[in-house]
Order: sequence, then structure tokens, then C-alpha cells
Amino acid sequence: MLSELKEKVYEANMDLWRKGMVIYTWGNVSGIDSDKGLVVIKPSGVDYDTMRPEDMVVVDLNGNVVEGKLRPSSDTPTHIVLYKEYPQMGGIVHTHSVHAVAYAQAGKSIPALGTTHADYFYGAIPCTRGLTAEEVEEAYEVNTGNVIVETLEGKDPMAVPGIVVKNHGPFAWGKSPADAVYNSVVMEKVAEMAYITSQINPNVMPAPQYIMDKHYFRKHGPNAYYGQGGEH
Amino acid sequence: MLSELKEKVYEANMDLWRKGMVIYTWGNVSGIDSDKGLVVIKPSGVDYDTMRPEDMVVVDLNGNVVEGKLRPSSDTPTHIVLYKEYPQMGGIVHTHSVHAVAYAQAGKSIPALGTTHADYFYGAIPCTRGLTAEEVEEAYEVNTGNVIVETLEGKDPMAVPGIVVKNHGPFAWGKSPADAVYNSVVMEKVAEMAYITSQINPNVMPAPQYIMDKHYFRKHGPNAYYGQGGEH
Amino acid sequence: MLSELKEKVYEANMDLWRKGMVIYTWGNVSGIDSDKGLVVIKPSGVDYDTMRPEDMVVVDLNGNVVEGKLRPSSDTPTHIVLYKEYPQMGGIVHTHSVHAVAYAQAGKSIPALGTTHADYFYGAIPCTRGLTAEEVEEAYEVNTGNVIVETLEGKDPMAVPGIVVKNHGPFAWGKSPADAVYNSVVMEKVAEMAYITSQINPNVMPAPQYIMDKHYFRKHGPNAYYGQGGEH
Amino acid sequence: MLSELKEKVYEANMDLWRKGMVIYTWGNVSGIDSDKGLVVIKPSGVDYDTMRPEDMVVVDLNGNVVEGKLRPSSDTPTHIVLYKEYPQMGGIVHTHSVHAVAYAQAGKSIPALGTTHADYFYGAIPCTRGLTAEEVEEAYEVNTGNVIVETLEGKDPMAVPGIVVKNHGPFAWGKSPADAVYNSVVMEKVAEMAYITSQINPNVMPAPQYIMDKHYFRKHGPNAYYGQGGEH
Repeated sequence: MLSELKEKVYEANMDLWRKGMVIYTWGNVSGIDSDKGLVVIKPSGVDYDTMRPEDMVVVDLNGNVVEGKLRPSSDTPTHIVLYKEYPQMGGIVHTHSVHAVAYAQAGKSIPALGTTHADYFYGAIPCTRGLTAEEVEEAYEVNTGNVIVETLEGKDPMAVPGIVVKNHGPFAWGKSPADAVYNSVVMEKVAEMAYITSQINPNVMPAPQYIMDKHYFRKHGPNAYYGQGGEH
Repeated sequence: MLSELKEKVYEANMDLWRKGMVIYTWGNVSGIDSDKGLVVIKPSGVDYDTMRPEDMVVVDLNGNVVEGKLRPSSDTPTHIVLYKEYPQMGGIVHTHSVHAVAYAQAGKSIPALGTTHADYFYGAIPCTRGLTAEEVEEAYEVNTGNVIVETLEGKDPMAVPGIVVKNHGPFAWGKSPADAVYNSVVMEKVAEMAYITSQINPNVMPAPQYIMDKHYFRKHGPNAYYGQGGEH
Repeated sequence: MLSELKEKVYEANMDLWRKGMVIYTWGNVSGIDSDKGLVVIKPSGVDYDTMRPEDMVVVDLNGNVVEGKLRPSSDTPTHIVLYKEYPQMGGIVHTHSVHAVAYAQAGKSIPALGTTHADYFYGAIPCTRGLTAEEVEEAYEVNTGNVIVETLEGKDPMAVPGIVVKNHGPFAWGKSPADAVYNSVVMEKVAEMAYITSQINPNVMPAPQYIMDKHYFRKHGPNAYYGQGGEH
Repeated sequence: MLSELKEKVYEANMDLWRKGMVIYTWGNVSGIDSDKGLVVIKPSGVDYDTMRPEDMVVVDLNGNVVEGKLRPSSDTPTHIVLYKEYPQMGGIVHTHSVHAVAYAQAGKSIPALGTTHADYFYGAIPCTRGLTAEEVEEAYEVNTGNVIVETLEGKDPMAVPGIVVKNHGPFAWGKSPADAVYNSVVMEKVAEMAYITSQINPNVMPAPQYIMDKHYFRKHGPNAYYGQGGEH
């Protein structure tokens, strides 16, 4: 069942690990089969070096396990909220990458300071508000998804394909699981650059909008001229 | 004698080294056989790349070498104080990992700023007071253990499985030697995250208690729902 | 056509990648055949691990593709402006290396604080002014080259073989593509050193001119006595 | 001639490179045969990955090349000043390791903040004054040695086996070339720890003298009890 998507989700999880974005069992990548309404996600608490494609878990959009012997990632309800809200998303990633987590813990957005950022994220990568005690107790993982949706209200989630959840860490997404991993790696890199920039110049301002426009749109949309016609 | 525990302690020491937590002969991991009242620990000043399982030293709870041709780690008395005080501990680790040492040198606890921390440490990772001149001269390594015990008074050591000793560095522990190494790696990672967070936002406050509760208890205790029923 | 230069440009691009200066498809290296007036450059958006020497694109000094099935790097017009202005340049590199980008984003020159810097860069590595909205809209990549030329006015570009473009990132150059990569690696290293220095001592001043002279001229020019008579 | 020492000096240079302390042709290690009054040192500007033991250069204490086809390191006169002044030194290292250079550029000593430092360096690692224009012009490398000697006046150089030269970088030494490399690696590590500590706590004070005494003397001198009776 969904063996091709399982292979893609497995590969995206392994890529996250090989790129040093996660240690131990941390992090998780999922992908969706929109036609079938089924999500494939990493199992909870399984080591990357022993994980196999067939360990990926299939869940429906109510969070019920449809196939798989292992429990799905404990963050599965967060992924589902996002897939239901944003049909454009084909893959979602959650990591504990150091610099993105630092922005989440600091309760600050990752500011758009230069073209590395603008090549992939059209504007600051927002930080959500913190969840209330009630939201945490009621349905923590679902409400983590909800606060992401709340923060993205009025925005195009595919133009800023990532967010940091306050006191928690980054989520990123994309057209596919691989694309989501790509965006999470870039988010960590631009978070590191923004951090160092802010130490060198505490009064730094965001880059001018027209530079951000230029870089974002030379890579994205109908007038893109970067690359060979594919993604990135 | 205790060949299985020796193998585990050896593997835990090597894991510490492979994960980049120690260089040269720095650091040490021990494990205890509670029934026999015997501790297995890394020999003092031996290089990781030539160390073998049979080089592990067996000591009793008075610090006497029971088996082994090499001297045990000079920190052995510290380990013994902790094993005697806390029967829950199955393994103990001491490292000089950079960010945890920086908190020790700064004389500051590692604050609980987010869920990466709360997944493993229920509250701030405390920093001990400094030892007095008398304590250092009298019995340095024993009193290092004693000041850890003093700092943990009234706390559950398994809920916050690590500490930084002022002007010195981190100790971590767990149910087994491998578990102790795991906690020392996480401690270094959350120390790095806390450091960067504090540079981005010097006024950062600890994460709300209810978020810490949520994350800690979704991984630990009777209501845990993270993972496949095993540790971590 | 130009198969030797293609091989050199390919190798320089791969070296940039192997040294960790770029991830994914980021960065680009070019080289020029001055006699023929032709530039060889990395194709746009191609992964390093599948790239081959024959993928390098040949363009003339008007930016027209003379040979190659792939589109040249989108930064090609910037390279061309520099080659036309500075016949001494044999190779040019653009990266998104973290610390050099941080200085670019901070809008600050990389100050000459010590001999590591002075061994390769005779004075601060300047930061350009930001481009205006008009310059960006009119001809972004050409004007990026123009603002570099403007910033270097009155300077010897081979004595300070690199620059950071505000809100963007570093460009470096040299007598050959390999030499340009070398200088970009050194620029990243001295940017990291300058950053940490400025955190340790916020009031740090540039090193005295006579120390900079000594180090620069013991490696460069007719009285150089470092090395075996070759470069570096 | 001196083939055993050449092998040791070669291995120490390669170790420096493998440990990531140097890139390209940076850095140099030497060793002395005290009986013969001859120094073996890395050749100037030779890449580590093609260097062979027989490339090491033999010089006498007047700086004359006694054997070897290549020019010796341009820092050779600095090494010779130190060997002549301090017969206890068996090996000397110069690097451009990032954090030690940052302290040199900041013009600050590396403070003794904890036991990692005290295990190898008995007190702060001093920073020299800057050389004057006259000193630089007259005999730069010799005067670099002289300012090190001036800074160490009244101190035991084997108790603090390293220094940072203002606006330049670190030198370290030891009983042998390998020992000197060891100390240079530790110096870089404690510089990194001191830097991060100072960012976490800008008001941090040196560790109490009695803790430094304890750690230094449990590893060094007649009452040492760390290790198996060998070095470190």
C-alpha cells in the first residue's frame, strides 16, 4: 500500500538524518497521497539507522492507523491539521535543528536579512504565539497545528514554507517530502545566518522588499529564470 | 567477571567518543551491578582508539579495585558517591562537552527554554555551588559527588538526569551506561540551544510549566505515548 | 571546446562543495580564457554530486551561450562585468558561506584584525552599498557587478581579492578558478575569526598597518619569502 | 639524518591537520634534537596531503638549513628563539585555530575559567603585547619569539605551555612535537569554552586558585594521580 510514497517518506527522513538535522529518534517527515486522503509518516521513537521503508506508518485524515505495525510519530495530529488546511502541501517536516529551535525558544521570527533567505522564503519566517495551558491540556498536538494555521492566516503558506512554534521548534513543508526537507535545511541555515548577523550588528534591519522580491521571483513563479526549469 | 557490564560500559565510552563528546582521554562512563555492589568504570588516561572492553576496571563501593590491571578514572570517587546515594542510577557519565562546560564555568544553570529540553529534563539543569578550599583539599572527588547530592536535595535525580558542577563541567546519569551517555548528549545539545537563545533574546524566560509537563510526561511515566513503548 | 578550462572550473566548483562552502546547488565558480574572450561557468541549479565537467557552460562577454546544453548560472552577468573590468582576474567565485553572508547582511566590512587576514587580504574586505530599487529592477545581476566595481574604485582588486555585497553575500576572485576558491575559503575563515573577536572584544581595532604590510608582503610581491616560490 | 625526529615532526604536523586545526598550508610543527642542536621543521607552504617525512627541513640554531631541499617554515626564527631560551621545550607548534586567533586578535589572555583549562594550563594563557613597527621591520619572526620570551618572564613555560601573540595567533609547546600538538588542541578547546562562557556570563571571574591547583597537580608533578603514569 502506497509503497512509492513510503519509499519517498523514508528517503526524506533518512536525508534529514544524514544532513545532521536530527540526532537519535528526533524529527519526523510525512507525505500525503491527496487522492486517497492518506498520510505516510515516520514511526515514533525509531532509530534512523535501523529504520526501513516498510516501517513507515499510514494514517487517514482522522489520525487512525490504516497500515503499519508501529505507532506513528506523536506529532502526527499536527501534520494532519496542516494537510487538511493546506491542500498545496505534499510533505511536512518537524526537526529540532539548533538555530531554528533557538529562534523558537527566543519567541522571535527569523527575520529576512538577505538573499539566501529570500531565495526560498518570501518574508520573515514567523514565530507562533505560545499555546495556552488549556490548549496544551485539551489536545496538544492538534492545537500545535491550529496555532500554525492561526499564524499563517492571510498568508500563502507555500511562499513562506516554514514556521517556528514558540518554545518548541521548526516545522517546514513543501510540494513533496523531499521538498519539505530541503526547506527545513534552508531554514536552519538562514536562522544561523540571522543569528550571527544580529550579533555583528544588533540594529540590523530586514533587507529591502525589492531585493527580496527580486530573489524570490527569479526562483519562483512564471518569470523564474534560475535553474534548468525544475524546482529550486 | 562482570563481562557483560564491562562490554556495556566499554560501548558507552566508545559511543561518547564517536559522538564527538570527548577528545583524547577526556570523559568517563561507568555502570553498576547493584546486586554485587560493584562498579565498572573506564581506566584513567587511556586513549579511546586503543581501549578494549577488558581494560574496564571493577571497583567496589569503597573505591577499592577488585579487578583490572589499570587505574580507574580519577573521577571514580564522584561516581561512587552518586551510586551510593541514588540506587536508581545504573550508569554515570562525565564529559567536557563545550556548551555544558561553558554553563559550568559561567556558574549558571541550563534553563528550560523549550520542548527539546523538556523531553528529557524536567526543569532547569542545575549548577552546583563551587567547592570550598577545604572541600577541595580534603577529598576533591568525593566532595564533588557530595555537592551534586547537596544540589539535588529534594529533587528526583531521574527526572533531571544531569547537572553542571561549577568551574568544572557536566555529569549525567541514567538507568544504564547507554542511557547516561544519551542524556549527556542531549544536555550538550540543549546547552547549545539555550546559549544561542540567550544571545538572540537576552531577556528570555523559561518555557511555561504546562508545556514542560506536557512534553516530559508524553515521554516518561505511566501515561507516556511517545515511542514504541521503550525508552526515549 | 575549452576542455581544459572546463575541467578546471568543474574541479573548482567541486572543491567549493567538498570544503563545505556550499550546499545543494548554491554557489558558482567561473574561469576565463582571456585570449578567446570566453567564460566557463557552472550551470544554474545543478546538483554538485551529479555535475560533470561537460556540464560547464561557455558564454561570451556579452553573456551569450556559445556552448553547453544547460543554462549558465543566473549570476553570470555579475561575473562578466568583473572580467571585463579586471583583466587580472582568472577566476571568480560566489558562495553563501555563513560568516561572510552574516557580514553582508549586517552591511559591514570584514575588518583586518590579524595576520590570518593580512596573509591574503591587504586591508578590510569591503561591503558594498545596497542596490537601489531601480538598479535591481533594471538589471539586477549586471548592477551587482557594477556596485562591486564602484566599491573597488581606486583599489587593487588582486590585493583584496574579495568583497561582500550588502544583503547578499561574498564574491571572491583570483588568478585562476582554484585561486578564487582558495580566497573564498580564507574569506569565510577570517569572517568567522572577526566575528568571534568582535564578541570577545567589542572595541577591537584593526591591526596596525605595519603588521598587515609585513604579512601581506612576505607572501606577495617581489620580496615574498613564504612558501617554495609558488602561490600561497 | 635525524630520520626518527623527522618522522615524529611529520606525524605531528599531519595530526594537526587531521584534527582540523589547520587548512591548506597553514601552521607548522617543529622538534629539536638538543644534543645535536638541530631543529626539524615543516617546509614552508607545502600542502599537508602531499607532504612526506623526508620533506621536513633540518636547521641549526642559527637558522641555517643543514639538510632538506625545501625552504623551512617562514616562522622558523620564532621557533629557534624559543628553543634557545627554553631547553625544556622538545616541540613547538604554530596554528591559526579559530578561537585562539580570536583571543589574539582581541588582544586578550585566555582566562582560566575551569578545570578543562587547569588540567593543562596553570593559569591564564597570556596574550603578548603587540610588536612595534621597529620590531616588525627589523626582524619580524625573531622579535615574535622575543616578545613571547618577554611575556613569559618569571613564569615556568612548561606550566603554561602556550601563548597568543597579539594580532597574530597561538603558539604552543611541549616535551615533544606530539605533546606540543596536544597542547595546541587543548588551547583551542579552552579558548572556545572561555569565549562561550564570556557570552553567557559577561562578568565571569577566573576559577578559584585552589581548584586550579588541584586539577593541575593531580595531572602534573610528583603527586599526580591521573592516568597510568604517562603523560596527560
